[in-house]
Amino acid sequence: MIQIQLSERQEKIIDIVKANEPITSENIAKTLKLTRATLRPDLAILTMSGILDARPKVGYFYTGKTTFSFISEKIQGIKVAERKSIPIIVDEQTSIYDGIVTIFLEDTSTIFVTSKGYLSGVVSRKDFLKNAIGGLNLTKTPIAVIMTRMPNIIVTAPEESVLDAAMKLIEHEIDSLPVVEEVILDEGDKAYKVVGRITKTTITRLFVELGNNE
Amino acid sequence: MIQIQLSERQEKIIDIVKANEPITSENIAKTLKLTRATLRPDLAILTMSGILDARPKVGYFYTGKTTFSFISEKIQGIKVAERKSIPIIVDEQTSIYDGIVTIFLEDTSTIFVTSKGYLSGVVSRKDFLKNAIGGLNLTKTPIAVIMTRMPNIIVTAPEESVLDAAMKLIEHEIDSLPVVEEVILDEGDKAYKVVGRITKTTITRLFVELGNNE
Repeated sequence: MIQIQLSERQEKIIDIVKANEPITSENIAKTLKLTRATLRPDLAILTMSGILDARPKVGYFYTGKTTFSFISEKIQGIKVAERKSIPIIVDEQTSIYDGIVTIFLEDTSTIFVTSKGYLSGVVSRKDFLKNAIGGLNLTKTPIAVIMTRMPNIIVTAPEESVLDAAMKLIEHEIDSLPVVEEVILDEGDKAYKVVGRITKTTITRLFVELGNNE
Repeated sequence: MIQIQLSERQEKIIDIVKANEPITSENIAKTLKLTRATLRPDLAILTMSGILDARPKVGYFYTGKTTFSFISEKIQGIKVAERKSIPIIVDEQTSIYDGIVTIFLEDTSTIFVTSKGYLSGVVSRKDFLKNAIGGLNLTKTPIAVIMTRMPNIIVTAPEESVLDAAMKLIEHEIDSLPVVEEVILDEGDKAYKVVGRITKTTITRLFVELGNNE
């Protein structure tokens, strides 16, 4: 992929095609009072970039493709599977106090809680803080008491785009998403296995890489 | 700006120029066993994109410009001033308890602390959590006791790029940066006025906008 700043003449050609499509190169040349040979490189660039479409014996069409779609195409192609990091997981029986210790040991903002190996809850630093000043017995109360429970947990999946995951983080005002794989249990119920996490740190790191052309 | 997927022939031309620069279009055409007229649109695209440079009567040079610089150019152009949000600020005398209440009321991860109106400290949710379980008297202890103090505070400035701010967030493993303006005090000392904040949420929101082509 390469990128090209359109010339004034190329912008004019786009306008002419938009207004008169389909239009032959001869008629574009006439409108601009130039020769067809002069326009050939311009038309080549505009068709190669997908902005114009040329149909033999008919002429040029405007495709409606925006000129700024490159960044978004690149971003939309990045999958959760490529960027997920290791999830921090504790069992439901873990005490709130041990949960807080885990937050510090792992330097994470959110921990995922499982029951029999499947996702049952999520606890954020904010949840811990609220309860740490709330007078609960932190060493004796299991983390299950304060966690956000299924089915109120927002999740993402390996095949989802990082962009979709980032949109969930913003929309639901959370810092972290568990990356899950759906499992059908013997009884026919669905359950989630936690296979990773996507956080605002993941997104910030990706932004830095894109910005530094890595 | 537009983007173009290079053709195989264009990639070949780049290789030929790399190996033989400076080289005339005539010699490139000979190497490829094509006419100069056929190559004209290709050479136009490669020079317009800045990948090749043409000097009259000398020939074509390879500029060494990478083909993927577009995203990073766009990202590098975004300034902190355009994206900063409103900072949450409390005075040094505020109690830790009131600081925690502020964290919840403002739904923020970090608050900035000022003394006489100038930045003196930063307290994160993590700092609060650590001290909430540490046995301090939260309502009687001023926030100044637990804050990270100047000059150990990482800051950004309105004229800095959001990319540089994001790199600081990653490098220093923090969630939020105060956006500051430097002030020279009467005594000649420097101080910072807090005029905004850049957080991982700022970056995630920007990533979503770029990805959605907004």
